Amino acid sequence: MKPVNVGVIGLGTVGAGTVDVLSRNAAEIARRAGRNITVTHAAVRNLGRSRDCDIAAISLTQDPFEVASNPQIDVILELMGGEELSFDVVATALRHGKHVVTANKALIATRGNELFAQASEAGLVIAFEAAVAGGIPVIKVLRESLAGNRIDSLAGILNGTCNFILTEIREQGLEYDAMLSEAQRLGYAEADPYFDVGGIDAAHKLSILSSIAFGTHLNFNSVYIEGIEHIRQQDIVYANELGYRIKHLGIARKDERGLDLRVHPCLVQKSQLLANVSGVMNAVLIHGDAVGATLHYGAGAGAQPTASAVVADLVDVVRTLTADPGNRVPHLAFQPDELAELKSLPITAIECAHYLRLTVRDEPGVLAEVTRILGQRRVSIKVISQKGFGGDDGVVPVVIVTHHAREADVASAVTEIEDLDASAAAVVRIRLETLD
Amino acid sequence: MKPVNVGVIGLGTVGAGTVDVLSRNAAEIARRAGRNITVTHAAVRNLGRSRDCDIAAISLTQDPFEVASNPQIDVILELMGGEELSFDVVATALRHGKHVVTANKALIATRGNELFAQASEAGLVIAFEAAVAGGIPVIKVLRESLAGNRIDSLAGILNGTCNFILTEIREQGLEYDAMLSEAQRLGYAEADPYFDVGGIDAAHKLSILSSIAFGTHLNFNSVYIEGIEHIRQQDIVYANELGYRIKHLGIARKDERGLDLRVHPCLVQKSQLLANVSGVMNAVLIHGDAVGATLHYGAGAGAQPTASAVVADLVDVVRTLTADPGNRVPHLAFQPDELAELKSLPITAIECAHYLRLTVRDEPGVLAEVTRILGQRRVSIKVISQKGFGGDDGVVPVVIVTHHAREADVASAVTEIEDLDASAAAVVRIRLETLD
Repeated sequence: MKPVNVGVIGLGTVGAGTVDVLSRNAAEIARRAGRNITVTHAAVRNLGRSRDCDIAAISLTQDPFEVASNPQIDVILELMGGEELSFDVVATALRHGKHVVTANKALIATRGNELFAQASEAGLVIAFEAAVAGGIPVIKVLRESLAGNRIDSLAGILNGTCNFILTEIREQGLEYDAMLSEAQRLGYAEADPYFDVGGIDAAHKLSILSSIAFGTHLNFNSVYIEGIEHIRQQDIVYANELGYRIKHLGIARKDERGLDLRVHPCLVQKSQLLANVSGVMNAVLIHGDAVGATLHYGAGAGAQPTASAVVADLVDVVRTLTADPGNRVPHLAFQPDELAELKSLPITAIECAHYLRLTVRDEPGVLAEVTRILGQRRVSIKVISQKGFGGDDGVVPVVIVTHHAREADVASAVTEIEDLDASAAAVVRIRLETLD
Repeated sequence: MKPVNVGVIGLGTVGAGTVDVLSRNAAEIARRAGRNITVTHAAVRNLGRSRDCDIAAISLTQDPFEVASNPQIDVILELMGGEELSFDVVATALRHGKHVVTANKALIATRGNELFAQASEAGLVIAFEAAVAGGIPVIKVLRESLAGNRIDSLAGILNGTCNFILTEIREQGLEYDAMLSEAQRLGYAEADPYFDVGGIDAAHKLSILSSIAFGTHLNFNSVYIEGIEHIRQQDIVYANELGYRIKHLGIARKDERGLDLRVHPCLVQKSQLLANVSGVMNAVLIHGDAVGATLHYGAGAGAQPTASAVVADLVDVVRTLTADPGNRVPHLAFQPDELAELKSLPITAIECAHYLRLTVRDEPGVLAEVTRILGQRRVSIKVISQKGFGGDDGVVPVVIVTHHAREADVASAVTEIEDLDASAAAVVRIRLETLD
């Protein structure tokens, strides 16, 4: 059979990694796919830059639209990133009858609904395994392997930068700022780290996973987002003493009231597998009504792991090239006319346990005041512990772990505690999830 | 589109679970598959027995061949188990043009080569996700999601009964026999537990995983097999003191010399995720050259988790019903004419570290003798520790952890140590694997 011709948009980290894997493992891949796969064209911003892959046999251009519309090309790999230009490039490729594989989570999370509609109308595939959790095949697992399940919930470590920083704070005993610099030095964090440490990247991924799990349109704007910037080393130490690790999680849960989608730091019991996922690694825990709990772990970023996911999608697409378009796996797992509109729950409606760190004056009666406020709001205390004695400034940390309570009640109790005369700083509040 | 008609062979635990999931989640499944799926016929051994599923709309028979050859049926689910009759039933279904989904690891491991050849010739699919690791989608992950990788190795906890017994020995501090009875009482082990605790079941699964990972024909007979019957509670305690857990693993590794396939108990560092997989849960660690390490965790057995895998396969098969047979995912991941014959390494050729527990008389010079024997065989010692003093019988346990050494050298050193006058019992030898 004639080889499949592939055009690559972007030869940065992921693009070069993909070209490298496709040529290094060409024989192995053809033995699986039943056809040779050849990268014939690529679009790059800078023609003169050296690349981490062999480009001798690839025709280069600076114009991505030239590749996206080239009639010799069967499949486009969109590996340039960004939201605006990449949208136009993908839309152009679809208009020219090409299947698309992308690693672009922002594009899929924010513009996926439009692109999937365009692709389905044209009988084409947009594949995006690499957009979520790098080399971990969580899209395929949710979309195909758990097709018999009603998915109840999922929780994932979806951003390697956050997980690296939280792991390093714990292991090295240093503060957030130092560990962020370390992540930047090692290339795990961008010069502007806001997308990662602010939780936006994880929220993009969570909104994609949630759509596929629950059969809804993509709805990035309904994700509640908190980053890790406010986590202090002492919170990680106190959590550890209580038997927990602090992880930055994306959580999606469906119940009769609606859909609960949120990204925030979380205390997780040390005995949980998710708590033991360290450094830049990612993992996703999925709970289905038949399968129970499953967990999928691996590298969430990096040239080679992301390339692994891109190539898997490419092989899937190669298989669809001569097969019946009506029978393909739907983009969002459920048939397009079977997607549901589920109500999004506001963060104030959720219920979970909380870790609270108060900074209060070491005076008689303060703990009585605090416990009275919590009790009035129906927030019941599981553990309360004053850490040491007041120093020169006369203030002490008090750590509280609550039982399950309504988010809105905890929030108003926190406000009232912060208003006490004895309160010397803002309360640090971190949710605590019991996962299975 | 007209519903897909399914015939089920066997309504035991897995069969009834599958019928239950298909009816409970019928709407959810049809929203994904784009077609309704209906179980119309089933074959059972005993027509009068009550079932853990609703059989009101299912036409029952005692003759599996009647179902396998029924022209109204599109897909057969072979959920009866065993090797002989099930082979004939599946072959009959294929001869009658039906796709087959099976959960039967013994059938696939021992007769898969014949059945796949018959299926491919007829343009049919045999799907067997449920045959390995229950609800964990490890077949699909290896076959499709890691299609861009050269797989280097995999290691898995593949038998829930073994993992349950080893976990319970550690947590309850009791011996193997008591924990085996406990597993039988809870329904985790059969009345004749040999297939599970003797390692046969794990070896069936390992041979399937290995074929798919490395692109070879199934070759169950080349798997080296050890069970867990010889593991004593004191070994688990000593391993724990040294920082390890004992797990029963299936390991497949390819290098330039050939293929290393083995199932045996293993010391695994406590910090590894695999070491933290407890009770009846399964997990598979896969190492690919692009993706690095990935781990997949979930329930390895049970009615509902296994049904989850059966239904996923069924949805895949439903998608292929009108699609081009030439473009399907190959049964063993690689195209049939691209399967390789790899040399199987004998167990004596492998190299790994070892845990040895000697039972020797507490006399001067014994340790000198032991270390001399190991040194002569080029087995280098990492840790050596005498556990306590000789009791009334004057014998003491001595625990040794070796560095990497050739299996054959360790084996002959052990024989020589057992021949010493000071040696009071057979040496317990457990391999130690460093996983990533």
